[in-house]
Amino acid sequence: MRKIHVIGIGAGDPDHLTLQAVRAMRSTDVFFVLDKGEVKSDLTRLRTDMLAAHRPEGGYRVVEARDPERDRRADGAAYSPAVDDWRSARAAILGRLIAEELGEDESGAFLVWGDPSLYDSTLAVLEEVLAGGTVAFTYDVVPGVSSVSALLARHRIPLNRVARPVQITTGRRLAEGFPQGVDDVVVMLDAHQTFRRYTGDDIDIYWGAYIGTPDEILVSGPIAEAGPRIERLRAEARERKGWIMDTYLLRRNPGQR
Amino acid sequence: MRKIHVIGIGAGDPDHLTLQAVRAMRSTDVFFVLDKGEVKSDLTRLRTDMLAAHRPEGGYRVVEARDPERDRRADGAAYSPAVDDWRSARAAILGRLIAEELGEDESGAFLVWGDPSLYDSTLAVLEEVLAGGTVAFTYDVVPGVSSVSALLARHRIPLNRVARPVQITTGRRLAEGFPQGVDDVVVMLDAHQTFRRYTGDDIDIYWGAYIGTPDEILVSGPIAEAGPRIERLRAEARERKGWIMDTYLLRRNPGQR
Ligand SMILES: C[S@@+](CC[C@H](N)C(=O)[O-])C[C@H]1O[C@@H](n2cnc3c(N)ncnc32)[C@H](O)[C@@H]1O
Ligand SMILES: C[S@@+](CC[C@H](N)C(=O)[O-])C[C@H]1O[C@@H](n2cnc3c(N)ncnc32)[C@H](O)[C@@H]1O
Repeated sequence: MRKIHVIGIGAGDPDHLTLQAVRAMRSTDVFFVLDKGEVKSDLTRLRTDMLAAHRPEGGYRVVEARDPERDRRADGAAYSPAVDDWRSARAAILGRLIAEELGEDESGAFLVWGDPSLYDSTLAVLEEVLAGGTVAFTYDVVPGVSSVSALLARHRIPLNRVARPVQITTGRRLAEGFPQGVDDVVVMLDAHQTFRRYTGDDIDIYWGAYIGTPDEILVSGPIAEAGPRIERLRAEARERKGWIMDTYLLRRNPGQR
Repeated sequence: MRKIHVIGIGAGDPDHLTLQAVRAMRSTDVFFVLDKGEVKSDLTRLRTDMLAAHRPEGGYRVVEARDPERDRRADGAAYSPAVDDWRSARAAILGRLIAEELGEDESGAFLVWGDPSLYDSTLAVLEEVLAGGTVAFTYDVVPGVSSVSALLARHRIPLNRVARPVQITTGRRLAEGFPQGVDDVVVMLDAHQTFRRYTGDDIDIYWGAYIGTPDEILVSGPIAEAGPRIERLRAEARERKGWIMDTYLLRRNPGQR
């Protein structure tokens, strides 16, 4: 039976890899890489470097597939269906790759950014491949250090305040309003610096870009002060590198709600 | 200047350790261990085993301190103040230990369960020690695999549904009602199986105890079916081992809200 490891590789620092991840990488015959295009080639390179570091003797194959394009114009109610279509396209590509490139007794692996449970589609796509019934395999998941844990470690702060809840959400959702029932919110996948909406509020922001990499940038402080700085640094970095990856925690101060 | 590493060690599996954590452990002179009493001695043992595995040549010291007792009767509004008092007591003990046991040019470390950002007081206590001004040091934080990531990896499911937010909260908070604005909720620190409140709802539960350890138990399914099974297994395990550590995700099905 074919076996697949879904391996969380941490959020940017090659030393975020766990011993379990290294072990799984060392028992893998075929690494599947979904290339997201040239702008993200730094991310693909990190994976290649990890393989060079932990499989110096070689003895594995890398199978690359170009990720299908997602309809990025889809917004609001059209967003989830667009993601669903994209997942199905991805499942079709992957099913074919697994059937053709992975031998019956071999192990394959996906090296997933951060932790595989957090805003990543690999698990859903694999379930969809299995449901399609064209190829059979078992799979396991190796948890990783998420960009949330990495952000907080670099700022040296806790995610939650004592006995308080936390929400993890997307820029798209934050644009609909500050989440109910929480004062601590982590925002991911925000292409529009949605925190600017809250400049007038008594909220501290802890922001990080390219966390764990040599390009890492960290800024924190009250949104009113830190916000403009983040905007400037983010625009400069995005211009320089051609892409950006950032995450932040919003911590609303008591009394503001 | 004294230097301290706050090291996330993962949530139960010794292979959750990251390469960064191993590196930090290898550069540590003094490990500080706050013993939570005999019922938790398995947890202390995991740390000792990790030291034996990654510092086989020795050359380090272990300083143990008995954790101050927390007022566990404090509930509701008294909960946070009780935690604050306990932190201050902890800060006093730690400040003394750091000053007495860690040389001016040495490195100390705390091996923190899971990820240091999640429902853990080490960072707050260190800040309180520094604010006290009796001893000076710098510190850094090594992120780890949280019990949330470990739970989801073992169930092989994502934390969030596509483009949807997630809340992480405590049993105590869940007892006040299902969180607003989310359908996916991770519950930690729940001594009372608060999910039972939602037996009549269309909610799936993904539960795990002692995740990552040889005692691991996993149960999932609709609360109405899985709930009674979890109650039974939890009671048996708790009886057998004398303590339990469990976490779960509640996933409410659309239409139920
Ligand atoms: C598709 S999600 C994948 C998240 C990943 N599975 C994890 O656990 O971090 C991508 C988002 O993660 C965040 N992210 C991932 N790595 C990051 C890093 N090194 N620095 C800042 N943000 C990061 C950004 O918010 C980005 O939009
Ligand atoms: C004081 S909090 C510390 C959490 C830790 N910092 C982390 O990142 O997982 C303790 C709670 O974490 C959860 N927990 C930690 N380790 C666990 C494990 N191995 N299995 C199940 N739950 C666990 C339980 O909900 C427990 O009540």
